[in-house]
Amino acid sequence: MVAPTSQMQSCPSRPRQVLVINVGDELLDGIRENGHLLWLGEHLARRGLPITRSIVVRDNAGEIAREIGASWGAYDLVVTTGGMGPTSDDHTRAAVAAALGVKLVHSAPAEAALRQRFKQITRTVADADLSQCTILEGGEILTNPNGTAPGVFFHRDGSTLVMLPGPALELRPMFENEVVPRLRNVGCACDGEAYVQVRTFGLGAVPLEAIVRPLLGPGMVLTFGTHTGVVDARIASGGSGVTAEQLCDVARKVRDAVGHDFVCTGHASLASIVVEQLRCMEKTVALAESCTGGLLSNAFTDVPGASKVFAGSAVCYANDAKMNLLGIPECLLVQHGAVSAECAEAMASAAAEKFGADYGVAVTGFAGPDGGTAADPVGTVYLGYASPSGVWSRRLFVSGDRLQVKVRAVNTALDWMRRNLHKYCVEDLIQGA
Amino acid sequence: MVAPTSQMQSCPSRPRQVLVINVGDELLDGIRENGHLLWLGEHLARRGLPITRSIVVRDNAGEIAREIGASWGAYDLVVTTGGMGPTSDDHTRAAVAAALGVKLVHSAPAEAALRQRFKQITRTVADADLSQCTILEGGEILTNPNGTAPGVFFHRDGSTLVMLPGPALELRPMFENEVVPRLRNVGCACDGEAYVQVRTFGLGAVPLEAIVRPLLGPGMVLTFGTHTGVVDARIASGGSGVTAEQLCDVARKVRDAVGHDFVCTGHASLASIVVEQLRCMEKTVALAESCTGGLLSNAFTDVPGASKVFAGSAVCYANDAKMNLLGIPECLLVQHGAVSAECAEAMASAAAEKFGADYGVAVTGFAGPDGGTAADPVGTVYLGYASPSGVWSRRLFVSGDRLQVKVRAVNTALDWMRRNLHKYCVEDLIQGA
Repeated sequence: MVAPTSQMQSCPSRPRQVLVINVGDELLDGIRENGHLLWLGEHLARRGLPITRSIVVRDNAGEIAREIGASWGAYDLVVTTGGMGPTSDDHTRAAVAAALGVKLVHSAPAEAALRQRFKQITRTVADADLSQCTILEGGEILTNPNGTAPGVFFHRDGSTLVMLPGPALELRPMFENEVVPRLRNVGCACDGEAYVQVRTFGLGAVPLEAIVRPLLGPGMVLTFGTHTGVVDARIASGGSGVTAEQLCDVARKVRDAVGHDFVCTGHASLASIVVEQLRCMEKTVALAESCTGGLLSNAFTDVPGASKVFAGSAVCYANDAKMNLLGIPECLLVQHGAVSAECAEAMASAAAEKFGADYGVAVTGFAGPDGGTAADPVGTVYLGYASPSGVWSRRLFVSGDRLQVKVRAVNTALDWMRRNLHKYCVEDLIQGA
Repeated sequence: MVAPTSQMQSCPSRPRQVLVINVGDELLDGIRENGHLLWLGEHLARRGLPITRSIVVRDNAGEIAREIGASWGAYDLVVTTGGMGPTSDDHTRAAVAAALGVKLVHSAPAEAALRQRFKQITRTVADADLSQCTILEGGEILTNPNGTAPGVFFHRDGSTLVMLPGPALELRPMFENEVVPRLRNVGCACDGEAYVQVRTFGLGAVPLEAIVRPLLGPGMVLTFGTHTGVVDARIASGGSGVTAEQLCDVARKVRDAVGHDFVCTGHASLASIVVEQLRCMEKTVALAESCTGGLLSNAFTDVPGASKVFAGSAVCYANDAKMNLLGIPECLLVQHGAVSAECAEAMASAAAEKFGADYGVAVTGFAGPDGGTAADPVGTVYLGYASPSGVWSRRLFVSGDRLQVKVRAVNTALDWMRRNLHKYCVEDLIQGA
């Protein structure tokens, strides 16, 4: 990590203009979040193609054609998502062809692939389905092993158009496997990663900037991302000819300056780092959750392979559950309350014991909107941590609504565990991923 | 429910053109999802103002000004989000003023409110902070009780501009409390809800459309939203003069035709409906989760007030945990495996017993990427359900990646519980909300 320069190579020197057009009524009617923008934003930026502007339009041929007509030639790269299927509200293919004045032609390989796929899933091919087998004349078919609608790659006069299907499970592998190599071939994308990202926890963006800014070399571009406690600094060449090695060198200096607030380089989640730490140590963890209500457990189990280190979690909302499942003494709950340092420590110890795990982590607090006391208002959370070398607790106060309190408590618990395990692990555990 | 016509009143007869401009580098660099578009999309559509087009631009004064200049006059309503703060990358206020040729003037009430707020949070007011107290000449200040940057409401020549701050906790109450009443005053928004939404589970969009389409009256507009098993049909007047009563009448017919697949009208989550069912019955539920890893528990605890009916969850990933915490016999795990109908039923019964709850729900399956057998490949999930009248299980198969398997299993488990509890509850339990 902070080292694999073979993964980072020089980018096109001129910054590219990139437009993303997401097609779909459901994105505008508050039905589905525009997850494609988030995903493409990261994956284009990693290839040196940060999105300049993004537009969402309805499933309407006229509107799609108008956006393409207004933007073609002004952008190096235009990416469309959605509207590629066989139904009557799928207009992207025809609208783009009309806007560019390019013919739509039948693609025999696309039809063969579609017939093969339908055979696999034992469906018969209808006429409407075959509409997906047309392509802009002069364009290339992007094969879709996860669905029926192929994508399109079209390059003319220095501008590139990429048309991707709407479902995320189809779009993402198509982008990685079919689009990125072609973007490199036409000199649009970087050969490797376009920036180094340093992930931190606990510092805040302003103090992190004060550390990073003086370490930057000439021409380097610095941006920040914050996610409920996690603060990322991205250091990019910005088309200034800075080499990947120089970026890595800065990232290494940032890591050393940041100390224990350094989480990783790259995009690994806090949970995946703790899982990896435990995996290296061949140790296990169990949880006892009250106010986070299963969210901490869910963060662990989102990591593929977590079952090797994650024993389980007792989500004990009610005091009876804390007593019956975890064996927390009633007198402790009466004397100190369920939201207390004492209860957090007892829960953490009990979780480790009941699940037979090496480590126990507990969260108890007032997530709101009800609950809380004068001394411990809504937003007060106690974390407990039981390890072979002792049991500790800490108190935090989180502002925000119920869901924000849960997320912040989960991230802080994960980060606390990461710090505690840090000394047992090799320094550069996580490859940026 | 499907009845409160006082909540639904007639909308402007001409469809409105609505543009949303979200400002922020982090939205384009894959750092933060554009949650504002999802939220505003729903809340504008509910007021009869479906978004026509949405644009995301960078924190750049020139780009913001260009978008405003290109769109002002072509839209009835333009909403901007972000770039309203005091820092050097907050450009929205100045850029909009430049684009519209309107002066920015100081607002004494805004400054008073800001000074008051800073006093509350014991911060001193810097010069940069005061930049937030300027407003487009002729506009109105939208007060922000949850932050420092006020919003702006500006109406000229039949077009309306609304400028909202970036943080969701500030934007949402400001929209509800400050913006919606003003939009009604200028005749832009409906007085009540603009559509009726019928939420279903288990039918799929195509069969639901076949049921709903023949029930529509002339001029009514039908749209669909799907969310991993949940399928919503929205029936709107589409500016055709259809009354709220007529829409409710159709929704009532859809409910009757859909039968047990009918979930609710409105926007209530499956978890909130089950919580409400249990609250009415004064019963409690406990969970035993394997492959969903805490996500089912988290869905319950996202509902405010869930603690009244939700006893807790044992997230038992490892077989040892299933034995030690839930007392699942080792011979059952050996004979049938942890992913089996027998194990799901035993887990559900054990959860109810250990937590002292009336109902127990269990989920065990292969979420992937590893695991699975020839008979039960990755994506196979067994649900267990223990109730005072018996114990059942069912098997489902879910395609998709690890996270999709988890979400689909959670939704199916919640829906199964909803169906089972349905007969104990009054028909129209949930008011659309």
